[in-house]
Order: sequence, then C-alpha cells, then structure tokens
Amino acid sequence: MTSSDKPGTAADAPAETAETAGTAGVTPVAARDWATAASDPQYRAAVVDLLGALAYGELAAFERLAEDAKLAPTLADKAELAKMASAEFHHFERLRDRLAEIGEEPTGAMEPFVAAYDGFHRQTDPSDWLEGLVKAYVGDSIASDFYREVAARLDTDTRELVLAVLDDTGHAGFAVEKVRAAIDADPRVGGRLALWARRLMGEALSQSQRVVADRDALSTMLVGGVADGFDLAEVGKMFSRITEAHTKRMAALGLAA
Amino acid sequence: MTSSDKPGTAADAPAETAETAGTAGVTPVAARDWATAASDPQYRAAVVDLLGALAYGELAAFERLAEDAKLAPTLADKAELAKMASAEFHHFERLRDRLAEIGEEPTGAMEPFVAAYDGFHRQTDPSDWLEGLVKAYVGDSIASDFYREVAARLDTDTRELVLAVLDDTGHAGFAVEKVRAAIDADPRVGGRLALWARRLMGEALSQSQRVVADRDALSTMLVGGVADGFDLAEVGKMFSRITEAHTKRMAALGLAA
Repeated sequence: MTSSDKPGTAADAPAETAETAGTAGVTPVAARDWATAASDPQYRAAVVDLLGALAYGELAAFERLAEDAKLAPTLADKAELAKMASAEFHHFERLRDRLAEIGEEPTGAMEPFVAAYDGFHRQTDPSDWLEGLVKAYVGDSIASDFYREVAARLDTDTRELVLAVLDDTGHAGFAVEKVRAAIDADPRVGGRLALWARRLMGEALSQSQRVVADRDALSTMLVGGVADGFDLAEVGKMFSRITEAHTKRMAALGLAA
Repeated sequence: MTSSDKPGTAADAPAETAETAGTAGVTPVAARDWATAASDPQYRAAVVDLLGALAYGELAAFERLAEDAKLAPTLADKAELAKMASAEFHHFERLRDRLAEIGEEPTGAMEPFVAAYDGFHRQTDPSDWLEGLVKAYVGDSIASDFYREVAARLDTDTRELVLAVLDDTGHAGFAVEKVRAAIDADPRVGGRLALWARRLMGEALSQSQRVVADRDALSTMLVGGVADGFDLAEVGKMFSRITEAHTKRMAALGLAA
C-alpha cells in the first residue's frame, strides 16, 4: 500500500499520519496499543507485512533446520536440530494466529515473502553439518537483530509478540560450541566457514533489498513516512549495527568475518 | 538379552518369571506399575527396546514429515505437515525423557532401531504430495495399531506413556480428506496410490521382521516367554488384526488394498 492509498486517515482516527509523526504532543506508536495504532491504514499494512514476513521466515526456517538435521553426525545432534525446528514452528503458529486474530488471511500475508526466503535458502544450501550450524546461527542472529530494531518502533501489542518469537531458546550456544570444537580440531575448517558466513550475509542483504523494493508499506515504515518510522540515515545506522554485531559474533566463533 | 541372562530374578523380587507368567495368584504385568514390573530384568530390557524403537520412530517421522512439507501445494498444507512433524518431535521428547528417567542412555536405546526405520524411509521416499500424505496416514496408523496392541500388555506407567504419544492429533482426518478429494478429481490417482499403499505395507512388514529377528528381549515379550507376552498364535492374530484394519482404512480412502 502506498501513501496515496490511505484516504481519510486523519479524519477517521486520532492516529498520527506521516505529516504529524514525531511532532510534540502526538503519542508515538511505541507507546500505543494495536487497536489505537492500527487505525492508521498504512501502519496497519506495514505490520501485516512484518508479521507475514516473520511468519513465513519461521516456517521456512523450520523446513531448513529439519532438513539439516539429516546431516547431524549423532542422534543427539539430530535431536537438537529437530528441537530448534520445532521451536521455529511454534513461533510460526503464534504469528499465523495473530494475523488471523487481526482479521488477515495468514497465507495472503505470507505470500509476498515466499520468493525472497526461498531464494535465500536455495542459494545457501549447506553442504555439511557445520555449514548448517553456521547458517542456523548466523541467519537466526541477523534476523533477530533486525526484528529487534524494528520492534522498538512498533505498538505495544505487536512488539510483545515480535520479541516473544525472537526469544533466544539456547540454540546459539549449541551452534557456537560445536563450531568452535570443530575449528579447534582442524583450524583449516575456520577458513572455509568464514567464507561461508560471508556468503550468507551477502545473500541475506541481497534478499532484504528485494523485499524492501517490493513492499511499499513495510519500506515506508522503515525509511520514515509513517508513525515513528526511521529516516534514511537511521536505516544506514541500523545496517551498520547489524553488520557490526555479525562481525563480532563471527570473531567470537573463531571466524574472520 | 536372552532368558539365560537373568539370574536370580525370582529371588530378587516378587516379579513373575516366564515360568509363572499367567498362573493364578500372580499379578499380571498389566496390573503392575513400572517399579514392580521392572524388577524382572528381561521385562525391563524389552521395555527399553520398545521405548527406544518408539523414540527413534518419532524422530524419523519428524524428519520425513518435515521433508514432505516441501511437496505441499499450498502454504496452508505446508503448515499442516509442519504441525504433524512438530507433534512427532514432542512425542520423541517424552520418550527420550522417559528413557533418561529410568536410567537409560536414550541414544543407546535408539541405536538398534536406526537401520530399520532409515531403511523403511529410504525405500518409501514419496515422489509427490499425495504419496507423502498416504505414507503419513498409513505409516502412522500401522504403527499406532501395533503399539496399542503391545500397550495392553505393559505395566501401567509405560502403558500410559505409550498411549499418550500415540494419541491421535487429527492428522488422519487431514490426510483422508485431501486424498479423497484428489481421487474424486481424477479417479486414476486411486490406482497409483493403492499400489503405493501396498508397497508401504510390504516394506513395513519386512523391516519389522528384521527388528524381531535382531532384538531378543523385545521379541520374547511379543511371542511369549516373559510376563504376559503373547504366544505365537496370538502374534499371528495380532498381525491379522493390523492387516485387516489397514485394508478397511484403504477402502475408506477409496483405495483397493
């Protein structure tokens, strides 16, 4: 939805519009609940996009983790990856149920993001167990960083849900431990996995750009123009923070990012 | 473990042995709790086998359902298969936790059954969505029939767990509905799926025989010789009942078994 699609917003509701966002005396979205914030149709459309993107991301992550479980060297490792996959599925359920609760058809909300996620996963099919672990860790961390940044700008109800489904379930610790042990055992493994992590980051950025170019409401929320959306400079800073966090995580893993 | 491996059982505990099983005045296993029943080391070994077989079966089913989810024609269908997979994973968790609770290493208990399940799944890789659904339905139903038969002979605690993890979660209804709709739309589909179901049944029987031949304690419990185990005639009847139930289910699906 573009801004020309939202006739009568200002008259219909006390919601702030692009014009009044951030001005003194207007309650910022982050201090409102969903019922109040959603009276702005563009804010509503952006949140539906966000929930749809998150939901399909969880479903795709479920599928990929379950597939990577086949690469596990032991039954215990397989069970651990299956557990991660199952946790992602339950996150998917919460997001899907929320979409239904606010009167949106979940499948319709997810469809626009299928190509980007499927493209990412197709381009980054792990060739072994360690690549799968690095992918689970890196992918999860970048997605989590990004959605946390966005969450701060959301209405209270949506924020609570987004933070809940990003809740760390101890998966990172598992991946880090296994990857470090493998590098300790054979330092050459580190070089290969560092290249792999760089490829993952590149592919994630390229697919995100594709989404941003396609989804007006979501991008407008990110780059400003609705509610407490970022301005362009702040989007740049956000990407720096995410890249920096990625670099630190890779260093902690023993990989040069 | 064979019966010659259980020295001193009768002296150690009030547990019945093969010799006294079924005689008047002895409490049958089905009326005892785990603590009492497990004092017979051969009964204990048989239950560890059973839980290990069930646990790996659930983990393998998780993996295959998650993989079949990729074949789903719609996002809603994909979500439904992911839900089944996730339910199997939670069953796995309960069985694994139970093995740990009774002091068994879960991986060790599962290992003996990996080859049979993996063999079954490798031989019955669905080539499309409908074959995947029929497999989920047939495989689940046969396994469920078999474990229900066995459950009746188990101690009260083990029985409760086995029945809980076999609890129908509505998956059968989903598969039946989709398969019938496909046959209605194109009756030729029925012939192909009937052949497929027959292959599934054949492969399941062949892998079961492999397990029975390999696992002394489990087989002894099934064919008699420990506690309330079946005699050979009863095993024959059990297989008839399972085959008959399969035939009825196939007919209900619109498939000649």
